[in-house]
Parts: sequence; structure tokens; C-alpha cells
Amino acid sequence: MNKKKHSVAVIGLGSMGMGAARSCLRAGLSTYGVDLNQETLDILSDAGATAVSTDCLDFAEQLDSVLLLVVNAAQVRQVLITNGLIDRLQPGAAIMISATISAQDARDFAEHLRAKELLMLDAPVSGGAAKAQQGEMTVMASGSDSAFTRLQPVLEATAGKVFRIGSEIGLGSTVKIIHQLLAGVHIAAGAEAMAMAAKAGIPLAMMYDVVTNAAGNSWMFENRMQHVVEGDYSPQSMVDIFVKDLGLVTDTAQSLKFPLHLGATAYQMFTAASNAGYGSEDDSAVIKIFRDVPLPEK
Amino acid sequence: MNKKKHSVAVIGLGSMGMGAARSCLRAGLSTYGVDLNQETLDILSDAGATAVSTDCLDFAEQLDSVLLLVVNAAQVRQVLITNGLIDRLQPGAAIMISATISAQDARDFAEHLRAKELLMLDAPVSGGAAKAQQGEMTVMASGSDSAFTRLQPVLEATAGKVFRIGSEIGLGSTVKIIHQLLAGVHIAAGAEAMAMAAKAGIPLAMMYDVVTNAAGNSWMFENRMQHVVEGDYSPQSMVDIFVKDLGLVTDTAQSLKFPLHLGATAYQMFTAASNAGYGSEDDSAVIKIFRDVPLPEK
Repeated sequence: MNKKKHSVAVIGLGSMGMGAARSCLRAGLSTYGVDLNQETLDILSDAGATAVSTDCLDFAEQLDSVLLLVVNAAQVRQVLITNGLIDRLQPGAAIMISATISAQDARDFAEHLRAKELLMLDAPVSGGAAKAQQGEMTVMASGSDSAFTRLQPVLEATAGKVFRIGSEIGLGSTVKIIHQLLAGVHIAAGAEAMAMAAKAGIPLAMMYDVVTNAAGNSWMFENRMQHVVEGDYSPQSMVDIFVKDLGLVTDTAQSLKFPLHLGATAYQMFTAASNAGYGSEDDSAVIKIFRDVPLPEK
Repeated sequence: MNKKKHSVAVIGLGSMGMGAARSCLRAGLSTYGVDLNQETLDILSDAGATAVSTDCLDFAEQLDSVLLLVVNAAQVRQVLITNGLIDRLQPGAAIMISATISAQDARDFAEHLRAKELLMLDAPVSGGAAKAQQGEMTVMASGSDSAFTRLQPVLEATAGKVFRIGSEIGLGSTVKIIHQLLAGVHIAAGAEAMAMAAKAGIPLAMMYDVVTNAAGNSWMFENRMQHVVEGDYSPQSMVDIFVKDLGLVTDTAQSLKFPLHLGATAYQMFTAASNAGYGSEDDSAVIKIFRDVPLPEK
């Protein structure tokens, strides 16, 4: 067999997936794109993808690896098992599951993959769309040495930092879930503080400026409360993503018998926002659960 | 009257106050120091203070301004009113109240000062001991133009950033209190996440490393959870400070009739930590409310 370029399919071309796929192209990998949205596929095709399709079975046999950046465990299951991708990949191909899923789901998928002689990394990501675009995602991964080795070209292309949490599948997912506890609480706390400032008559641009220059700052406050100041809730990441992720945090805490004070409270706040009709708005729209508060409008 | 150096007394030489006093000395101000701790006074004296004392009445007549960096409103009241400092300052002297106090207390003090023809800035600070040491505190201040003008030499010496929130006394305090809502929630959320990681068997140094490289990071996580990783709870700022500050947040929310989801939860966590005997430990010791969790030891 001739030495050839590493072939990777990126499945799920949302803000993270599209950034990762472009990073693979820039790194010279033979890059395939899969999404249900034809416009998104056209964009990646124009950017130089080897092939794009709504159905990854179209090129499954050509792939060295698959990077899954879909939304949740149900979508991972749909792609890998229900649609039969794992039956069509070559033995020894490696799948990097970067959706945020439970440790139990990660272990389930690993079992299915092992039966087909496929490699797997339990490899959630963070960093936001901008970092994905720059090939600088933060990856928190667990899996075998051979899975890391096989996916090395993809990790090099897409990640600024790769944390090898261990060899046991499930550790990567657990670290990501605990990370999401912080991310979700920080967005909800930012919303609570900004709503309280609005109610107290503090101009929100001033409040934002103070916090981002002081010890009360967080990555999420700085990123998401800008949307509140601008009154722009067009979704970069949606409220319903945190309903899902804080649900996973809650499940994980329950299985550990761990008392989840702040994570549980933030979960109620995002759930209330979703029930009030803001599920598909930017996650900063969790601030809309506070009524009788004068918020900036776009 | 000859043009002379601006004379300032820094009252309360804790980690912030000592840093601010040293910054005043570096800026060439005639600097007086007041604290109840004689060792602390000796340190400032050696650093070049014009005079130091446990009683600020010793040099009240010499002062152009006073910077109050004591712990709470009761201490401010003790110094200014009970001990009679406001009866001994020259008319036109300016007092910068940088303790974290309620807006109502700030307005009360302003009334007392106005009766003695003294100026006042409602000027809480943030940034931590390191920033204070560098003369780079973040100041969130409200007050009259003449108060800002009179305190200009002190602000220049001690602050990296001065936010002029407005002229109304109480606005500075309110902004600081809302800032403390975020600071307190972020410390408690960091503790919750690290305790959950420990319970899930994730090495805490690894968890710390992941979070500080990802979107779940906060200023407080990065600063305080380092203490947890090192198992070192010697106090830089104590649990009981957040019992006090989140109490102020709760009072303020109550007076605004504002629903305080996360702030109230974090308040319970710090209160529980204090009741369990950790009130005088570093505020990161709020993590000790989680039992049956293997934490690093020093």
C-alpha cells in the first residue's frame, strides 16, 4: 500500500465541527464532511474537502479516522450504530467521539467499536467556535495508546492542547461534564449578576467593564454577557445545549451520590429559560427568566 | 500655605491595605499607616511611612485624605464616628471608603461626613493582594467631582483602573456587591467542581489544568483552586469574608426584591463551611463542606 494522506471525516459541521474540518484541510489531511445541512456541505466543499455528503456511508471505506462533533449521545448512536457506520469502516480505523456524552454512553460505544476492531478516543472538546476555527481546540481525551497514535494527525490539526486523562474510556467524558458544570454555572451567574445590576439601575456596559477588569471575571462572563450588553441573543450556543449538559452533570452527580448545590440550581435556571420559550436562543438568554428587569435591546 | 506633598492615611493594613500604602509611598505621597497590629505598623514604618499608629487621631490634622481598607461597615463606623476621626480632620479633607459595605451604609456615612464638610468617595476595590501591591487595584467609585479631584493623587498611586460609576453615593457599593456575587459563586462553583472530580477519581492537578485552559475558567477558579490542588488553606482571604459579602448580596437582593438563585446557594455553602469550623481558613476551604471526598493534603 502506498503511503497516502490521512483521511478523516468530520461528522457534524456546526460551529465547532466546521472549524475543526477547516483546520484538517489547512493541515493537509484528506478531509470529508458530513452534515444534514446542504449549505454547510457546500461551504466545506468550496473550502477544498475531498468529498461531502449527508450520508457518511458514501466514503466510509476510505477513512482512517472519524471525528464526531454531533450534539449528543443519541446522534452519536444514530451515526455509528443505527446508520451502520461501524459496519463499513476498515478495521483499525479510529473514531474520536467529541460530543458531550455520559461516561456510561462512552463505555457503551467503546464496546460496540471493539467488537468491530475499531479504535476509539473518548475525547470531548472545549474552547468555543473561534478556537475551533484556529485549530486550537482544547481536547480532554482518554483511550488506548493505539487510538491516540492513529488519531495523532487529527489531534495535531485541530487541537491547541490535548489532555491525556488516562487510558480508561469514560474519564474524558467525566472531565468534560465537570467542566460543563463550571461553564453552565458561570453563564447563569453572569446572567444573575447582570439582571441584578439592571434592577439596581447600574448601566450594564459599565457593569460588564468593571467585572471584566476585576476578580469576578470568568471566560463565560466575558464572552456571553457581551451578548446581553448588546441585546443580541442570536445563538452561538443555545440555552437547550445547557439544559442537556447540566442534565448530564446532574445524572453524573446522582450516580456518584454527590451533592450538586450550584450545578443543580443553574440547571433549574436553564430549564426555566427553555420552558419560557428561549431554548433556541443564545445561552445568555437564560437572563430572560428574570422579569421586571430593563435589559438592553438590539 | 506652601505647596506640600499630599498626605494620606491608609487605615487597615491587611493584604490590600498594605499594598495600597506601599503604592502611596512609591508615588511619593506623605503616607501614614494605621492598624491594630504593631508588627504590621513596623513593616510600613521601615518602608518609609511618615508616621504609623494604632490610633489615627495622632495625625488627623495633617491629612489631606484617608483611605479606609478595613473589613466591614462596623469597622468604618468605629474609625470614623465612634473614635471621632471626622471631628478631627480638616474641612475639605476626603475619605475614600474602600471596604465592602451596603449602599445604605455608604449613604449614612456620607451624611455624617457632609455635616463636617468632609468629602467622600464610595469606592470599593478589587484585584487581590498582588494587584494592590503593584498599585494596580480596580476601583469602582461614585461621588462628587470635588471628591474625585481631592483623591486624585491616591487614586493615581493605588489604582490601575478607576471606574467612575456616577456621582450618587451608593452606586459604587452596589457595583462591588454585585461583583462579589460573581466572585463568591465562582469560588463555590470551583470547589463544587473540584470535589466532584475528586469523587469521580480524576486527579485534581489534571482537572485544574484542563479548566484553566478551557472555557470553564474563571479568575477565582485559577487563583483559588490552586490552593486546593496544593492542599494549602492558609488564608489569603477567609471563608468568613464571603459569609459577610454574600450576606450583603442577599440583603441587597432582598431590598431590590430580586430572586437570587445562585448567590443564595453559594451563601449557604460558605455559611455551612464557617459553621463546620473553617471560617478563618482560606475561602477555597468551602470545598470542605463536601465529605467523603479525597482531597490533596499539603
